[in-house]
Amino acid sequence: MELNGVPIDDTYAEAFPTWVSRVIITAVTEEWAYKAAVEATGFATSAIGCPAEAGIDCFVSPDETPDGRPGYAILICATKKKLKEQLVERIGECILTAPTTAVFDGLSDVVAEVTEKIPVKLHFFGDKYEEQREVGGRTVWAIPIMGGEYIGEEEFGAVKGVAGGNLFVMGETQMSALIGAQAAVDAISGVCGVITPFPGGIVSSGSKVGSKYKFMVASTNEAYCPTLKDKVEGSKVPEGVNALYEIVIDGVDEDAVKMAMAEGIKAASKVPGVTFISAGNFGGNLGPFKFDLKDVLADEL
Amino acid sequence: MELNGVPIDDTYAEAFPTWVSRVIITAVTEEWAYKAAVEATGFATSAIGCPAEAGIDCFVSPDETPDGRPGYAILICATKKKLKEQLVERIGECILTAPTTAVFDGLSDVVAEVTEKIPVKLHFFGDKYEEQREVGGRTVWAIPIMGGEYIGEEEFGAVKGVAGGNLFVMGETQMSALIGAQAAVDAISGVCGVITPFPGGIVSSGSKVGSKYKFMVASTNEAYCPTLKDKVEGSKVPEGVNALYEIVIDGVDEDAVKMAMAEGIKAASKVPGVTFISAGNFGGNLGPFKFDLKDVLADEL
Amino acid sequence: MELNGVPIDDTYAEAFPTWVSRVIITAVTEEWAYKAAVEATGFATSAIGCPAEAGIDCFVSPDETPDGRPGYAILICATKKKLKEQLVERIGECILTAPTTAVFDGLSDVVAEVTEKIPVKLHFFGDKYEEQREVGGRTVWAIPIMGGEYIGEEEFGAVKGVAGGNLFVMGETQMSALIGAQAAVDAISGVCGVITPFPGGIVSSGSKVGSKYKFMVASTNEAYCPTLKDKVEGSKVPEGVNALYEIVIDGVDEDAVKMAMAEGIKAASKVPGVTFISAGNFGGNLGPFKFDLKDVLADEL
Amino acid sequence: MELNGVPIDDTYAEAFPTWVSRVIITAVTEEWAYKAAVEATGFATSAIGCPAEAGIDCFVSPDETPDGRPGYAILICATKKKLKEQLVERIGECILTAPTTAVFDGLSDVVAEVTEKIPVKLHFFGDKYEEQREVGGRTVWAIPIMGGEYIGEEEFGAVKGVAGGNLFVMGETQMSALIGAQAAVDAISGVCGVITPFPGGIVSSGSKVGSKYKFMVASTNEAYCPTLKDKVEGSKVPEGVNALYEIVIDGVDEDAVKMAMAEGIKAASKVPGVTFISAGNFGGNLGPFKFDLKDVLADEL
Repeated sequence: MELNGVPIDDTYAEAFPTWVSRVIITAVTEEWAYKAAVEATGFATSAIGCPAEAGIDCFVSPDETPDGRPGYAILICATKKKLKEQLVERIGECILTAPTTAVFDGLSDVVAEVTEKIPVKLHFFGDKYEEQREVGGRTVWAIPIMGGEYIGEEEFGAVKGVAGGNLFVMGETQMSALIGAQAAVDAISGVCGVITPFPGGIVSSGSKVGSKYKFMVASTNEAYCPTLKDKVEGSKVPEGVNALYEIVIDGVDEDAVKMAMAEGIKAASKVPGVTFISAGNFGGNLGPFKFDLKDVLADEL
Repeated sequence: MELNGVPIDDTYAEAFPTWVSRVIITAVTEEWAYKAAVEATGFATSAIGCPAEAGIDCFVSPDETPDGRPGYAILICATKKKLKEQLVERIGECILTAPTTAVFDGLSDVVAEVTEKIPVKLHFFGDKYEEQREVGGRTVWAIPIMGGEYIGEEEFGAVKGVAGGNLFVMGETQMSALIGAQAAVDAISGVCGVITPFPGGIVSSGSKVGSKYKFMVASTNEAYCPTLKDKVEGSKVPEGVNALYEIVIDGVDEDAVKMAMAEGIKAASKVPGVTFISAGNFGGNLGPFKFDLKDVLADEL
Repeated sequence: MELNGVPIDDTYAEAFPTWVSRVIITAVTEEWAYKAAVEATGFATSAIGCPAEAGIDCFVSPDETPDGRPGYAILICATKKKLKEQLVERIGECILTAPTTAVFDGLSDVVAEVTEKIPVKLHFFGDKYEEQREVGGRTVWAIPIMGGEYIGEEEFGAVKGVAGGNLFVMGETQMSALIGAQAAVDAISGVCGVITPFPGGIVSSGSKVGSKYKFMVASTNEAYCPTLKDKVEGSKVPEGVNALYEIVIDGVDEDAVKMAMAEGIKAASKVPGVTFISAGNFGGNLGPFKFDLKDVLADEL
Repeated sequence: MELNGVPIDDTYAEAFPTWVSRVIITAVTEEWAYKAAVEATGFATSAIGCPAEAGIDCFVSPDETPDGRPGYAILICATKKKLKEQLVERIGECILTAPTTAVFDGLSDVVAEVTEKIPVKLHFFGDKYEEQREVGGRTVWAIPIMGGEYIGEEEFGAVKGVAGGNLFVMGETQMSALIGAQAAVDAISGVCGVITPFPGGIVSSGSKVGSKYKFMVASTNEAYCPTLKDKVEGSKVPEGVNALYEIVIDGVDEDAVKMAMAEGIKAASKVPGVTFISAGNFGGNLGPFKFDLKDVLADEL
């Protein structure tokens, strides 16, 4: 299987369930909404070592936000139990504190049915000076603050979504693979309902389960390390590949992740020097979701 | 006391001790170093609700980094116990995973004497494929990864620094106060050894200790809320002020915080519509550091 | 007439005809397309002193570009005679020279009927090493260059569009007016087929025709200068206004400019401290297009 | 000759004289100064097809600008005759029109002796409402405008500087060469008194003098086109090179250009996949300045 002359591996990405909420942050300008969104989604690459996985989903234009101001939608992904704590802390510490912001539940914009609702009661911060109000058909709390007023909804939808959707972008040189991965991330950013939570959307150091060091639960995936190609048995680094980057995709549902993978593959395949595209799995033992690259690209091939 | 026609309050900022490390992240281009730095310093506004306080200190030019590549220095601030965990997790999850990065201890560039060293042993991730090496006079570990190699020092200096240095920038309108605060943050970003950990460097919702709600340890500081000016007794919002923003400054030592405060005040005082500049304290009961605005500005007045 | 509590002047924006082309620039990543677009649309605020008026219209996703790569659409506006020269020079000097770019005609994406076509024959640069090819259904030239190959269409549609559509955003303080104008520019950037050619989309120094200095054809519009409010007769600076910014809008047709004005006014009216919104005209003597603010906002009021 | 394992060609860059002015643009925040600087330096890659060569030299901190606000220094390069016109038009149309800006002569900050002064009399725009004033020891004009006041010096130093300093960064793949060139441009941006006027600092389509088409004065430099390597005689594309990018450097004097070339070469040589570094000349027939790569790197080798 080839796309734009680049071989596409006959394999699948294996992914896992996660709980996901989607928060719309609005502010006086796009720039201030963006700054809050960046702070609120930092330190959130992998649920292994970070308290959550989070990222910016997409820009939301003034015509689509409840208060008619520009906004950014972010996804926060965690176990159900941790999701509530992370919503409270990331909204409370990174958005309530940011200049001119308001916060709205944005999940129903990208998901057909939302059954769970998570309460995020920040209005107590108002010390009884807060008041309930209606903004764009939503019931919100207005809290007096130094900068003026903070406006926030206090119930956020949550769905069982998908974490760990992924692609491997491989290149003739490290820079070819890197720009290939960047082009994929750019393209995925246009898909609603997904994030690529790693730095700049890219993982440089994909891991395997376990290690020769007993105390490590995960370690470098030597089969995919180009510098170990000739030193380890069973290297999976193909001929003509000297670097590879993984893109991890979390999304609100399988369709969103599938679409993101398709856009990512298409974009990467157009970058000169990208020589192979694959995906990561653990033999189907660990997660219930399988995204076969053939299916993902069915419309393209 | 006035600066550029703006009254400067006769008061002081009260601050607290914190442990601080300084990490230099280098990458193939400035842009990739920046992306890693942003991810590694997110969700880190206040130690109350975030696992650490962190931010970008400054750009480090290729001539000043151990590997001759462009870099960003970040500060991570926490209790001594938490600092180690945060260094491990933020470097391990947000920098080791980022494309083309290397990591070096950067504390001795801004502090005269560093007595504490925190071990951050990420090389076990290499699963015995890692090797020790020397880069720019530093002993580092080279770990084979998908993207090529990750290079990292594994001991980071730590000093007892200062958290909670602060300014209040007040304005005739909300936007005057906001741009005043932004100008202050811009200016502070030029000072080495300090960060402004809140979103875009600015706090919109400064708090007081305690609340009418028994279960809340902190709540909105109504004395500084412009919309409550006529509703609460003892409002501290001066005549002619309709919004205010706080800038919180963490730094490696008192001198760095003092210089940052001076640069911030000077910059804010030049923004049209900024009508008052002050600072926050708790009567000296809580923290050992006092930054009197008169002293801070001694060279200017 | 009021919108979100802000008085909207009972007046109209007066605008003039211009010839407009729309060029889609694609590149290996969004970032490189953007860099070329910025260079190609610089020094292009006003046809009075610049060789053209130009700006970025919008991002074009990989699914919508002829070569499946990310792109930016730019508008170039000039007299019909000058438009050809400006297309040749801006594409030849700022896009052909930029890394990884390709160029396509993008006018028919936003205009129903394009009757004029302007030839832009850059393939002679190929010194007979160039060749014709088809990309995404378009006939293009491929020119061998140092970086690899440049791909370009060589006929660009042109229509008689609209220049000088405008808004005046007025504020209680300079920063309120500035952020109000910025919010308006942000919102206008979401409308297809228009640009705001001034720096950051904003004009700080609107002019009138003529001057007390005989040799000047235009000069500061003292009636709209807040600092001259009490010094000149017939000041048009309303009560409660201490600064104002103009937003100039060029577009492919009247509908696009009208929609841009509506989005701009809506956005500005939501910014705290914006106290009046108006538009500029010359009594209808100079241009054939009149955009009455009442009509522009008919759907909102 | 090798640097970091990359062969450095035994050749020189040939450069030409140009007249140069340096303008410092300040504004209320760094961001607004930057926006004005970008507009003022656009459409300015090559004096062949653009009215000038221009670019951003560097950020100027509030402590170093005459009015204590953040600023950007730009260089404008042209023939002596054209330089005056370009200063008038670029400052008048792109900076005077930008929100909150002021303009100061910045040449003496980077050049020991400035003998020429170019008058740029924009104060006539004030229509006799303007007034002379002193700011930071400089005599300036304050012009009432819609946004408040524009402040500008009206004499700008000019020196005979250097245009066309250059590097060729060559790579194993197109993306390696591109990131190599980007790293070089990043590094050069840290050198005072120089610009890299092309889009993102990089030239993708270097040219030779003359063409097989009689009416063309310049055309693609086929000897340096990787795709023509096997089709033309005397190809200068080395073994192992599949793409190359040129960086053109203009500067206030030979020392600045030399330092920029050194920083650029050092940075590019550290990028994986960069396999050769050279420079362009015309056999010494066209320009008086020769920058021998050996000399440029004397301190490094």
